[in-house]
Amino acid sequence: AKEVAKLLEMKAQLGGDEGKHKFVLKTPKGTRDYSPKQMAIRERVFNAIITCFKRHGAEVIDTPVFELKETLTGKYGEDSKLIYDLKDQGGELLSLRYDLTVPFARYLAMNKITNIKRYHIAKVYRRDNPAMTRGRYREFYQCDFDIAGQFDPMIPDAECLKIVHEILSDLQLGDFLIKVNDRRILDGMFAVCGVPDSKFRTICSSVDKLDKMPWEEVRSEMVGEKGLSPEAADHIGEYVQLHGGLDLIERLLQDPKLSQNKLAKEGLGDMKLLFEYLTLFGITGKISFDLSLARGLDYYTGVIFEAVLLQQENDHVEEPASVGSVAGGGRYDGLVGMFDPKGRKVPCVGVSIGIERIFSILEQRVEASEEKIRTTETQVLVASAQKKLLEERLKLISELWDAGIKAEVLYKKNPKLLNQLQYCEETGIPLVAIVGEQELKDGVVKLRVVATREEVNIRRENLVEEIRMRTSQP
Amino acid sequence: AKEVAKLLEMKAQLGGDEGKHKFVLKTPKGTRDYSPKQMAIRERVFNAIITCFKRHGAEVIDTPVFELKETLTGKYGEDSKLIYDLKDQGGELLSLRYDLTVPFARYLAMNKITNIKRYHIAKVYRRDNPAMTRGRYREFYQCDFDIAGQFDPMIPDAECLKIVHEILSDLQLGDFLIKVNDRRILDGMFAVCGVPDSKFRTICSSVDKLDKMPWEEVRSEMVGEKGLSPEAADHIGEYVQLHGGLDLIERLLQDPKLSQNKLAKEGLGDMKLLFEYLTLFGITGKISFDLSLARGLDYYTGVIFEAVLLQQENDHVEEPASVGSVAGGGRYDGLVGMFDPKGRKVPCVGVSIGIERIFSILEQRVEASEEKIRTTETQVLVASAQKKLLEERLKLISELWDAGIKAEVLYKKNPKLLNQLQYCEETGIPLVAIVGEQELKDGVVKLRVVATREEVNIRRENLVEEIRMRTSQP
Repeated sequence: AKEVAKLLEMKAQLGGDEGKHKFVLKTPKGTRDYSPKQMAIRERVFNAIITCFKRHGAEVIDTPVFELKETLTGKYGEDSKLIYDLKDQGGELLSLRYDLTVPFARYLAMNKITNIKRYHIAKVYRRDNPAMTRGRYREFYQCDFDIAGQFDPMIPDAECLKIVHEILSDLQLGDFLIKVNDRRILDGMFAVCGVPDSKFRTICSSVDKLDKMPWEEVRSEMVGEKGLSPEAADHIGEYVQLHGGLDLIERLLQDPKLSQNKLAKEGLGDMKLLFEYLTLFGITGKISFDLSLARGLDYYTGVIFEAVLLQQENDHVEEPASVGSVAGGGRYDGLVGMFDPKGRKVPCVGVSIGIERIFSILEQRVEASEEKIRTTETQVLVASAQKKLLEERLKLISELWDAGIKAEVLYKKNPKLLNQLQYCEETGIPLVAIVGEQELKDGVVKLRVVATREEVNIRRENLVEEIRMRTSQP
Repeated sequence: AKEVAKLLEMKAQLGGDEGKHKFVLKTPKGTRDYSPKQMAIRERVFNAIITCFKRHGAEVIDTPVFELKETLTGKYGEDSKLIYDLKDQGGELLSLRYDLTVPFARYLAMNKITNIKRYHIAKVYRRDNPAMTRGRYREFYQCDFDIAGQFDPMIPDAECLKIVHEILSDLQLGDFLIKVNDRRILDGMFAVCGVPDSKFRTICSSVDKLDKMPWEEVRSEMVGEKGLSPEAADHIGEYVQLHGGLDLIERLLQDPKLSQNKLAKEGLGDMKLLFEYLTLFGITGKISFDLSLARGLDYYTGVIFEAVLLQQENDHVEEPASVGSVAGGGRYDGLVGMFDPKGRKVPCVGVSIGIERIFSILEQRVEASEEKIRTTETQVLVASAQKKLLEERLKLISELWDAGIKAEVLYKKNPKLLNQLQYCEETGIPLVAIVGEQELKDGVVKLRVVATREEVNIRRENLVEEIRMRTSQP
């Protein structure tokens, strides 16, 4: 046996030697593995999100990780350069998906679906410069919920905001604010400020930077780089500092210039309706109509929104400052039509939860609290105090598995009892089922509670029930 | 409002027109979307598998969908040509993962983990010629369970087989057989048959084809293409038709040639031990020690196994024939050492469940049975019989959501009651909570059971409890 093992080892080491200088032991730039502990935290977050999506009646779909390159072309504006392409290997030209929204629109058009409420949780890929400490990766999860279909105005839009509110409250990430705006209000604002039609999108991109740059810098980008007149820029500057609630909406509906612009008026009317629905949902306290919110992506056509976490109170700063976006979304009524051969439109509104940032926050919190997180759900370890009982342990654990009990056994012929108990301590297994000569004779198993060290003999036929009872979740 | 809509539509259609002739509305070759109904079936299968993996105490990890190209190089033999490479965009050379085993080994070496029991469920990628009707895709899920660590022989190996047995029994796919062999027995057999050392792997590949080709064809490949002597081939031919249980193992342990070969003897000794453990688990009835089982991958070093579904009894064939592999795995003691800078080895054994084929079978079964599968979990639709009650519906549904009830509402200001009831019939929502003027005055909600049409007034403060009671799973 030893010789064979040696031969195999030599064989493997040959492989190892070849590789020694060749292999770089790492994951690709901007990506990471998830350890069991990280996965345990991640699954908590996913559960909260999926539970919420299901509470709102969503179905679930899945799409391939790559799409035909042309499916993604022309959807992301400047960000298209961040798309990962696959090597052309004599087949189709393929790219890794950049988000879940474009594949969703492709799915609707391809299957001629005009009406669906679905969620999709999957990884997306962006060749961005990763800032991994802040939870930004090249491979990351998106959790999307979208409502597609022709409906009465603002009801699905309001539900999307309710969902963001529920998820962020449920995850207890601290105080948050959901900023809301409307692309039509932005476009109307640009029009009345004297921005030429052709510059709407590029000026919109500049406004989008207001969460990261002071107004002065954004203004000089508009005027210097993008050739906007200083007067128009200053005019925009007045609007984009406005934020508030229904009162602000009412005031802007009376604004002598904006009220003359059809797009703006339409947007403001819908914003008012949205706030009425949000009032019924009881969530306006955390919603701010904010004229500086622009959102980068081209495909939005109506309401847009973004949720930010606010600095915690104990951070001792004067005014709560945003510490980053954790959810965003909006209405995109034109995207499905871009895929439909006849241009048939399917109005859509949706929200994407920024799971990686949430995950980073919770991970740091767990680290700080030294909370012990279990990475398995094992209810009982099947153990023995004496030697030569491997067969009895295997027989017992097989019975437990077949009864649906989560059970483990050490993969040793004759493990020490101390090592078996230690394994339970380390991994959080609450119970130990101990077989020994005497117990076998008596037809019992000794059940030990790891936390209290209490031991009690249980008749073998009652063991499954006893374990279930002692480990049932309250 | 209409004008704005028209403008937006024109804008979107412009986009649509541009795209009209350009877009090919399809998913990449060999891939597919999953519809909500398919996802519902898929989640059932995943749940059964994950439940089993957790029952056996596994943790869970995740790794990136792509690896450095060099991580995958030299691990898959001839199949390396099937790996998807990413385009070199001035960064690292990356490839999509081909399986979950090599990333697992990379993960262990990189994190210096010598001891773990983990599962990993994720998509893998192979540029194979897809046979999608038979459940073969270029993008597909693997469900892997592996045990890494230095343990007493065959205990983890036996647990892997127990897991396959549990999952296939649980999923009720019909009769199945788990074939078992050992690479050391194969290599020993090759040696005593007179196969030169240098031809072990390539002859092993030929033997691997015995599940798809008759012996005569495999023999002519060995002799014709691979230059094996006819005598050696015939000698192999005698061995590879053998299959059985403990009796066969005992017989081969007495075989005058095999028993003289150290590798074979070692393999047979371990096989005997394995069968003893499988007897304790009570699963030898579905296990066959089969000398024709070879498994394609290079990295196996010990036990190998493969589970096949057998033709159903009602298929009216004389002998049960295999209809395809649904799980496979084995021991690979050298793979982690190929990644470790010092060649340190971590013995591993694992199993991979072939979820796509299982999923195809269950999908066909659902289609045939016309079983109606719910794709949402909604417990109640909030409805109204009269007009102008949208606000009341939104108020009520908000209360229900906040109480954790899964609830939907039609996104219409004044939906007809009939349409609301029809929606419940279509989507399987069991309850309707109806608000009307009278109910509002009386402080009640009318709760309707869709299946029986029974209606009962429930006091609003008791509604949540009533819905919970009526929709709780038994």
